[in-house]
Amino acid sequence: MSNSLGKIFTITSFGESHGKLIGIIIDGCPAGLAINEHDIQKELDKRKPGESPASTTRKEEDEADILSGIFNGYTTGAPICLVIWNKDIDSGEYEKGRFLPRPGHADYTSYIKYGGFDDYRGGGRFSGRITAGFVMAGAIARKLLGLIKTEVMAHTIEIGGIPSRHMEFNEIKQRAASNPLRCADAEAALKMTVAIEETAKQGDSLGGVIEGIALRLQAELGEPVFDAIDAELSKALFSIPAVKGVEFGAGFQSARMKGSENNDPFVIEKDKPVTRSNNAGGILGGISNGMPLVVRVAIKPTASIAKSQQTVNLKEMTTASLELKGRHDVCIVPRAVIVVEAMMAVTLCDLALRAGLIPRVIK
Amino acid sequence: MSNSLGKIFTITSFGESHGKLIGIIIDGCPAGLAINEHDIQKELDKRKPGESPASTTRKEEDEADILSGIFNGYTTGAPICLVIWNKDIDSGEYEKGRFLPRPGHADYTSYIKYGGFDDYRGGGRFSGRITAGFVMAGAIARKLLGLIKTEVMAHTIEIGGIPSRHMEFNEIKQRAASNPLRCADAEAALKMTVAIEETAKQGDSLGGVIEGIALRLQAELGEPVFDAIDAELSKALFSIPAVKGVEFGAGFQSARMKGSENNDPFVIEKDKPVTRSNNAGGILGGISNGMPLVVRVAIKPTASIAKSQQTVNLKEMTTASLELKGRHDVCIVPRAVIVVEAMMAVTLCDLALRAGLIPRVIK
Amino acid sequence: MSNSLGKIFTITSFGESHGKLIGIIIDGCPAGLAINEHDIQKELDKRKPGESPASTTRKEEDEADILSGIFNGYTTGAPICLVIWNKDIDSGEYEKGRFLPRPGHADYTSYIKYGGFDDYRGGGRFSGRITAGFVMAGAIARKLLGLIKTEVMAHTIEIGGIPSRHMEFNEIKQRAASNPLRCADAEAALKMTVAIEETAKQGDSLGGVIEGIALRLQAELGEPVFDAIDAELSKALFSIPAVKGVEFGAGFQSARMKGSENNDPFVIEKDKPVTRSNNAGGILGGISNGMPLVVRVAIKPTASIAKSQQTVNLKEMTTASLELKGRHDVCIVPRAVIVVEAMMAVTLCDLALRAGLIPRVIK
Amino acid sequence: MSNSLGKIFTITSFGESHGKLIGIIIDGCPAGLAINEHDIQKELDKRKPGESPASTTRKEEDEADILSGIFNGYTTGAPICLVIWNKDIDSGEYEKGRFLPRPGHADYTSYIKYGGFDDYRGGGRFSGRITAGFVMAGAIARKLLGLIKTEVMAHTIEIGGIPSRHMEFNEIKQRAASNPLRCADAEAALKMTVAIEETAKQGDSLGGVIEGIALRLQAELGEPVFDAIDAELSKALFSIPAVKGVEFGAGFQSARMKGSENNDPFVIEKDKPVTRSNNAGGILGGISNGMPLVVRVAIKPTASIAKSQQTVNLKEMTTASLELKGRHDVCIVPRAVIVVEAMMAVTLCDLALRAGLIPRVIK
Repeated sequence: MSNSLGKIFTITSFGESHGKLIGIIIDGCPAGLAINEHDIQKELDKRKPGESPASTTRKEEDEADILSGIFNGYTTGAPICLVIWNKDIDSGEYEKGRFLPRPGHADYTSYIKYGGFDDYRGGGRFSGRITAGFVMAGAIARKLLGLIKTEVMAHTIEIGGIPSRHMEFNEIKQRAASNPLRCADAEAALKMTVAIEETAKQGDSLGGVIEGIALRLQAELGEPVFDAIDAELSKALFSIPAVKGVEFGAGFQSARMKGSENNDPFVIEKDKPVTRSNNAGGILGGISNGMPLVVRVAIKPTASIAKSQQTVNLKEMTTASLELKGRHDVCIVPRAVIVVEAMMAVTLCDLALRAGLIPRVIK
Repeated sequence: MSNSLGKIFTITSFGESHGKLIGIIIDGCPAGLAINEHDIQKELDKRKPGESPASTTRKEEDEADILSGIFNGYTTGAPICLVIWNKDIDSGEYEKGRFLPRPGHADYTSYIKYGGFDDYRGGGRFSGRITAGFVMAGAIARKLLGLIKTEVMAHTIEIGGIPSRHMEFNEIKQRAASNPLRCADAEAALKMTVAIEETAKQGDSLGGVIEGIALRLQAELGEPVFDAIDAELSKALFSIPAVKGVEFGAGFQSARMKGSENNDPFVIEKDKPVTRSNNAGGILGGISNGMPLVVRVAIKPTASIAKSQQTVNLKEMTTASLELKGRHDVCIVPRAVIVVEAMMAVTLCDLALRAGLIPRVIK
Repeated sequence: MSNSLGKIFTITSFGESHGKLIGIIIDGCPAGLAINEHDIQKELDKRKPGESPASTTRKEEDEADILSGIFNGYTTGAPICLVIWNKDIDSGEYEKGRFLPRPGHADYTSYIKYGGFDDYRGGGRFSGRITAGFVMAGAIARKLLGLIKTEVMAHTIEIGGIPSRHMEFNEIKQRAASNPLRCADAEAALKMTVAIEETAKQGDSLGGVIEGIALRLQAELGEPVFDAIDAELSKALFSIPAVKGVEFGAGFQSARMKGSENNDPFVIEKDKPVTRSNNAGGILGGISNGMPLVVRVAIKPTASIAKSQQTVNLKEMTTASLELKGRHDVCIVPRAVIVVEAMMAVTLCDLALRAGLIPRVIK
Repeated sequence: MSNSLGKIFTITSFGESHGKLIGIIIDGCPAGLAINEHDIQKELDKRKPGESPASTTRKEEDEADILSGIFNGYTTGAPICLVIWNKDIDSGEYEKGRFLPRPGHADYTSYIKYGGFDDYRGGGRFSGRITAGFVMAGAIARKLLGLIKTEVMAHTIEIGGIPSRHMEFNEIKQRAASNPLRCADAEAALKMTVAIEETAKQGDSLGGVIEGIALRLQAELGEPVFDAIDAELSKALFSIPAVKGVEFGAGFQSARMKGSENNDPFVIEKDKPVTRSNNAGGILGGISNGMPLVVRVAIKPTASIAKSQQTVNLKEMTTASLELKGRHDVCIVPRAVIVVEAMMAVTLCDLALRAGLIPRVIK
């Protein structure tokens, strides 16, 4: 069950980068949710490359295809199978590099673990491409969360060491989609664009940081001790290729504060307890406290770079040098923003169903 | 199943801070592993407070009691139930503060989620005390990992913003236990001690960062896409109260590097591919690559502080001020070190069993 | 996780027949359910031997001990740990028979599977005694089902080939507890008693059939295709030692009917669709249809008999003869009745929670 | 996760009878197993109707389509997605009967459970057609079991009350496929054929009993207490539509035997303990004992019959009469034989992997 995630609202991932298709099955979705191909396509389009200087020039005309579980425009309660048929595939380059694992990639570990039987073409199961399935599941999860007014969004807060300035949630919401980098701070986005273009020229790549936010979560999501909301979210987020760190609220910074600084004092607002600050990132004891949930995700620089790299030949056990050709993203951060949103939505949806906050039939 | 973790080697946590006991059940442990109360007690003793200025002066004479699953000194293949009977309990203070949720604590979320039926005494299920159960399970997991030569260790690398210097694994291994802060850098440990003592005088608390290391992992642990080794480890680590961030290898720093800097080049060493650097922290594509697995965990400052804090009265919905009495750790980082080790061991053990690396009967 | 059952309302079994204790953990129980030791003891007492000629004369003064999860008389939402401390144990007989597996028992398979490390005393994990834990979990499940008016009951319908006559549910309910065999038909019970007494004199044993009934189930329990209500119930029932068959409604008899005889016609009663007959046993397509759920469970004769039997010596690989001493039930059917009730209640409770029919906090 | 089954070797079912496709995902299959479309098609063809008088005359040219997880003729270790694209569909009849639930069918429960949003065409998720997916998964499971010499087979032992005579395993193996009813007893098969033809003329249907056998199982499959081999098998078998009873070995008959008759005495054969009889059906304490595993499955008569039946109109809440048109199997037993084999293979494969008997990479 290692390709399934969630306990009530469960997603199962399948398909390979250069195989026939990429797919996802959503099991446990309540019946009666209005959804159509357009709702899913809309999310999928946000993941498209080619919009920004950061992305590959490969054309990915990913089209969502609903194979089961939706009937007359509504979910039926049965497993929903969504796929994208792969097109525009050129695996020639991969055949040549079969025994030359790319540094920073899963080529080597996949080869060892699966005894050389893995579908290595285009990174197979380890390609960022499989996250297209996550995004399709996210489209459905977001619709469900909408029923309880919960909103999930993510945005770029750092690329190549260039940070965006601090902004209010409303500002972020309005501006994050205004540029292809999905950075709400237009000025920072300009600097990031320049850095990306320069890095591209060097045949190199950049990483960055994404911030995910969930607004209007009820104060009871999370099933401690092991299915705590932060535990479940981090598991889902680390399933995204290239993620190397996850922190909530003040995160690593909280380790440098004193208790009196880090603790968020409670106050009454509109007859409800809220906290004056939000160093906890909306989570206390693994349960949402009703404040905005804030998570930050570190994305490493794209492993596939044009620059010459040192590797080994797994067949001959000799060192070798590697020069990758093909079309790779210089920085996947902008595209990963939508994947972070999707994995947050999927996880929160599962926890909301587990907490009994969403009914099994939508009326 | 929210109090169970793992798929083959499964732990189930139960018990409350001020209830009768704290316990853990380990299901799926192979038969034939030699283990006795002393093996478990040894690990448990490392979690004891009172050794360092960081810890509570409360006496916790935690004694491991084996209730099932071990017979004639060997595991039987049946569920192993390990408990600690609670003693030295004074819940009086908690009765008084019932409706005054402590900032930074689970008091408020627990109250909301469980409709006021939660056992609030001593933090109930949300007390750091439940991690004593994790440590007992860790003792068994470490013995199992020993069969495949895998070693797990953790150490303090930062307290109150004071970092330890970079050290080799061997040095860390030799020195981490040499002081009560479990910091391999003796000089840094001294500064940390001073900071802790000063903070204690202010009635305040400190956080810090723990580094976990697993050595001699075979290059095939992890079950992508969702049960990736980093995904599983992060879930286990975020289940530890007070953890606010988890990063692997270069972690958040990798977000600031270029691909050519961050990618670890492969080289041949003793006829085996290894990487020259280890920014990946021993993980590629969610699978161990045979290099040391390195994870860093941010621990927030202890939420319970003597300093006056602002909170609300949940019954009267008014603001209130809170002055906590009782014996609290100024900094839980040194005690959390052993919990990080335990959760790493438990998770790696489950993945090693899932990969078929440990037999079902030890001979 | 092979000692855990259920997805939301989960039970985890531990302990051994001649070890320190027998226990069960119930995870996922809603908070706010009023429950105390007496509620659990009441169910446990029904499983006591010594009431009927069918049972062992061994005194089993099983006392339920609540170790966690219940506070001030209410469930807290945390894992509930219930145990019985073993007393009156004499394992001497088992030491002598260590390498002489009892025919019909798990001695041989347990020895092979766990490499000889299993706790063989009193049958260890394979003793009927572990079902005392199931019964304690059942006590809680029944209370929860009571909230949605669902009632679970079981009764003896056959012992040693002697059937009870067909009766209405109300009659069964009133009379099943009127004799120690838990057979609603007093006349049949008399014949069964005679058969048991005669069989006892021969040093032999008897089996029988138990019928389980669930009344007032809502018409939507069951999560097809794999977690169908019959699939889940059968799994739970086959976990009871000595069960060799499970059938629903007309069961094996339906295989001999024509479709026009077996199909239950729908009619309207009190503005609701019901079926005129109930060959389906209350289940259509793996989902409850609102009619009484009816299941029958075949219990084999007790494997431990005084009569001389042929077996082998596992150490010397020679044939041997076996004469068991000790106090064994001649027929476990009457005691198994309460275990069938318990496993039905536990399973239906999990499905009711999964269907969203029971809230997470009872108010 | 209600459409997923298994813990290591996991299958996930999706698709609807009259939707685009029927599919299955197999997760956890070891890498390196040689398999191709033909291997799967061969099994699928055995489920084809039209071979016997028992079956529908509808043409089901089901073609297995491998969508993922197999590369260059070998499994890769990634999820294997297998589908059948639906053709020859006529849903017109179903539109007319939308509010007239067929007696004995899931129409009513499905309507209630999913609030009327279920895809009712052709029975949707509740059609026997979804078992085509089970059969495809079974094809892979059987290949894996072949690696450890385990063989799974099933045959018809009763139709319409006509039993086949008792036969040895070898005879069954040789003759079960010799007639379209999959009954090894040719004489009985003739009588069954006559009964089926007569029943067809009456517009009625027949049920029957299938026996499943697994040969050369190692003596250690099964994970008690809850994942006992009989518990897991029964759950899998009750997931097949129309199954109303499951019994192992002597089954319900054992309830009528004495212990001295039912217990299988151990003897030594070729230096190994075996049992002289096999009333246990190869299972002791929920673990295989190395003897042939024997299970019998009761199949109710097909619910869809041409004869006029009484039902209700769910919209108007009035009684109604129902005359089904269309092409239905008079008796699904012969086709269900292959489904029983498939579900046995899938379950035994999961248990063999859990017991560590099959490696994660086939070499």
